Amino acid sequence: MAQESITPRSKDYAQWYQDVIAAGELAEPALVVKGCMVIRPHGYAVWEKMQADLDRRFKATGHQNAYFPLLIPLSFLAKEAQHVEGFAMEVGVVTHTGLRAVDGKLVVKNELEEPYVIRPTSETIIGHFFAKWIDSWRDLPVLINQWANIMRWELRTRMFLRTSEFLWQEGHTAHATHGEAREEVLRMLDVYRDFAQDMMAMPVIRGVKTASERFAGALETFCIEAMMQDGRALQAGTSHDLGQNFGKAFNVTFQNQAGVREHVWQTSWGMSTRLIGALIMTHSDDGGLVLPPKLAPIHVAIVPIYKSDEEKARVLAVADRVAAELRDDGLVVKVDDREELKPGAKYYEWEKKGVPVRLEIGPRDVDQGVVMAKLRIAPLDANGKPQKLALKLEGLGAEIGRLLDGFQKFLYQRALELRRANTVQVENWQDFQAVFAGENNSKFVWAHWDGTSETEAEIKAATKATIRCIPLDGEGPAPEAGVCVKTGKPSARRVLFSKNY
Amino acid sequence: MAQESITPRSKDYAQWYQDVIAAGELAEPALVVKGCMVIRPHGYAVWEKMQADLDRRFKATGHQNAYFPLLIPLSFLAKEAQHVEGFAMEVGVVTHTGLRAVDGKLVVKNELEEPYVIRPTSETIIGHFFAKWIDSWRDLPVLINQWANIMRWELRTRMFLRTSEFLWQEGHTAHATHGEAREEVLRMLDVYRDFAQDMMAMPVIRGVKTASERFAGALETFCIEAMMQDGRALQAGTSHDLGQNFGKAFNVTFQNQAGVREHVWQTSWGMSTRLIGALIMTHSDDGGLVLPPKLAPIHVAIVPIYKSDEEKARVLAVADRVAAELRDDGLVVKVDDREELKPGAKYYEWEKKGVPVRLEIGPRDVDQGVVMAKLRIAPLDANGKPQKLALKLEGLGAEIGRLLDGFQKFLYQRALELRRANTVQVENWQDFQAVFAGENNSKFVWAHWDGTSETEAEIKAATKATIRCIPLDGEGPAPEAGVCVKTGKPSARRVLFSKNY
Repeated sequence: MAQESITPRSKDYAQWYQDVIAAGELAEPALVVKGCMVIRPHGYAVWEKMQADLDRRFKATGHQNAYFPLLIPLSFLAKEAQHVEGFAMEVGVVTHTGLRAVDGKLVVKNELEEPYVIRPTSETIIGHFFAKWIDSWRDLPVLINQWANIMRWELRTRMFLRTSEFLWQEGHTAHATHGEAREEVLRMLDVYRDFAQDMMAMPVIRGVKTASERFAGALETFCIEAMMQDGRALQAGTSHDLGQNFGKAFNVTFQNQAGVREHVWQTSWGMSTRLIGALIMTHSDDGGLVLPPKLAPIHVAIVPIYKSDEEKARVLAVADRVAAELRDDGLVVKVDDREELKPGAKYYEWEKKGVPVRLEIGPRDVDQGVVMAKLRIAPLDANGKPQKLALKLEGLGAEIGRLLDGFQKFLYQRALELRRANTVQVENWQDFQAVFAGENNSKFVWAHWDGTSETEAEIKAATKATIRCIPLDGEGPAPEAGVCVKTGKPSARRVLFSKNY
Repeated sequence: MAQESITPRSKDYAQWYQDVIAAGELAEPALVVKGCMVIRPHGYAVWEKMQADLDRRFKATGHQNAYFPLLIPLSFLAKEAQHVEGFAMEVGVVTHTGLRAVDGKLVVKNELEEPYVIRPTSETIIGHFFAKWIDSWRDLPVLINQWANIMRWELRTRMFLRTSEFLWQEGHTAHATHGEAREEVLRMLDVYRDFAQDMMAMPVIRGVKTASERFAGALETFCIEAMMQDGRALQAGTSHDLGQNFGKAFNVTFQNQAGVREHVWQTSWGMSTRLIGALIMTHSDDGGLVLPPKLAPIHVAIVPIYKSDEEKARVLAVADRVAAELRDDGLVVKVDDREELKPGAKYYEWEKKGVPVRLEIGPRDVDQGVVMAKLRIAPLDANGKPQKLALKLEGLGAEIGRLLDGFQKFLYQRALELRRANTVQVENWQDFQAVFAGENNSKFVWAHWDGTSETEAEIKAATKATIRCIPLDGEGPAPEAGVCVKTGKPSARRVLFSKNY
């Protein structure tokens, strides 16, 4: 029971987003559990693809997975002052265990001596165990990752982008020196950048958050920022230099090579199911979901076309042979032989689910030894219709491989082009305001800023644009001195402004 | 900082179990979160191997993964009468969100209108969504699996075997007929049996639970039961025929092909991190963890042996070459080149971690073109010492492959032999009591039972032995009529008794 129609982006971008999720059967709001969602099989299959690739990258950089408790003693949260301030409002609290029936109604039974919070992130509980495990410089570095569910009670939720429960990975590492920790922070930021660009076909800008956008308890937060189709930014991953803040809060110390006891230097870094929202808003269109081949749960949908039983037998035989051949090449192929649906309805369904390549096979194609291939986003032919390619059965696997590779690159280039077209340098306050005028207008704006939180807040209040990041060297325009777009005070380099998700 | 010594099994089996876990760095009690544990990297790596193989088997049988909310509205639990009775005492309850500081202490802030329970299992919340998704016979079967964390507040906990939070998978399926549902229940039971035997090298007996051991809300619960080294049974996986109980409780209906609306027939089935406990108690010994190669995170540990720098260079060159060759064969290999440890200490460490094969390479071996191989459990040589094999460098990969295959089979056969040696048929009450006399005595006992819950309870009260299962055909002794070991009343077939974990 998929959603039948998708609201065009031009009409209502937010509604389009919900419609793509419903029509693609990616997820649905839980409703009975506030702010939560159910991730349906097609959406979860995308997440599994993301997980598998990220996990491989984490292991290749020396990390091991582990699992820490879901519940955290309430008192732990209070040990790092910034941290508790950042998360206190959002946590779910377990106060009781057990239920009993009173007048036919279930009520809570045993009150806990100390309540637990459901992890909003795991720095505190992991800090506690790091203190047990780390004793000497020989025990360092500790390089751990956890795949887990997280709860942050949010007032305004939106599927994938901001839900009260979400799935993520959280890396937690401990090092002997600040230099090593900083290297780790940047290494994982680059892992995130590579994943976003290579797998998600989503260009990103690496940078540092300003103090006001920093993770609660971090010295510095690094991030990758992507542009969505509507010109807003989406923070796609963060990597935190925690300094010795949690090391001191949880007394995580080690004896260095000189025999002196020091606090460890820690990092943490995370990516979450919010990336599925980013994927949708980077590539999808008014026809529904568009997926880069590297993250598509189904690469090829084959739709057989026939009228008689004789045609059906001939066509299905070829469809099955093609499917087997493509599967041998490592592709996931769906032969859609449902009797109750017409070919057009099948096309529509696989489009909404973002399958990169559709193959149509009819009796004439079989006679000619070809199949008709259509990419999810195809160039238009002379008549203004999406191109279909007649591909020879011989060598089909290699040809489909080339099509998929090309489609992956096309999506990245298209996203890069969209970002280029919607990125501007702005020199004065009037132009700055003009870019962000209107509820829905946003671009990436490189502008000078005087470096103060006050100015940052004023700009946000006036335009809803925030500083997404101070770019790392090599990102954005080359550093050049200038004056703040709002106050005219001196600035050493431009920073990235945008409205954001 | 691994545990140094392991209590022998003969001295204290329960302590040995804890020691193996500590020494192998598999997990540790969380302590600060009651009844919970931290799964450390080596333990989690075993779980990842289990997950990957089970997940492959689930997908090969047509299942898709999905994710449902962690929290369940309290009222949902009450909708199935047996279900709430089974789980009410054990659930953690979220009553508040947010924290605020009062007199410098954090206290809960916003009370929820309706509390949520943390899922003790997901039949109820999934039933709710099945009702939304299923409308016609065309929507069936729905074949879903979820990998998730679960909370059941347990009074007495033991690492892996019974913890307040654990990781598991839960399959949930809906079918048009009871026959199809029953086929699914048995199909997944066989998937579990195959996994236990092929991957864990752990023989199991398939059977049906008696009413008193049935899953709360099921028509019938099927299980696989394994024997631990101390003669106790461990339930390693369950597959439930839920009938229409949850279909009715959550009004999950479909229009059948005749146009009539019916309730669906559901199943659920699960395996959990408790299997790691089963693995330990099936194979490990007084030297620590023993892992079947198919679930070992590290297959081969190479320990270089040298005195001079010149020897070191020669030996490490060969060690690295061997490691590269074995990795090409798909093995995970650790070259232990730590300077601060002597070879003996390294041997000891990799033994405690259950690495199946150790290779020692010294200068003389290099000269002779061999390495010395030792299996984690090796046959004894003429001097009563564990055998070491001199393996030629040429063709080493194939030879190690054979050793690992052989070790996997050896562990299975050894476990099967242990079970044979500790399984008896008992004909009268006196003999029955004798088997289970003493706190720690247990075997697998095939005995006749009159089929009543009263007798089952009396037997348990007198001996602490419970009916682990009524065996499926082909399991245990051939069916033959007899009289109940306790009451002398007629019985159609023997059932399996044992003390259990």
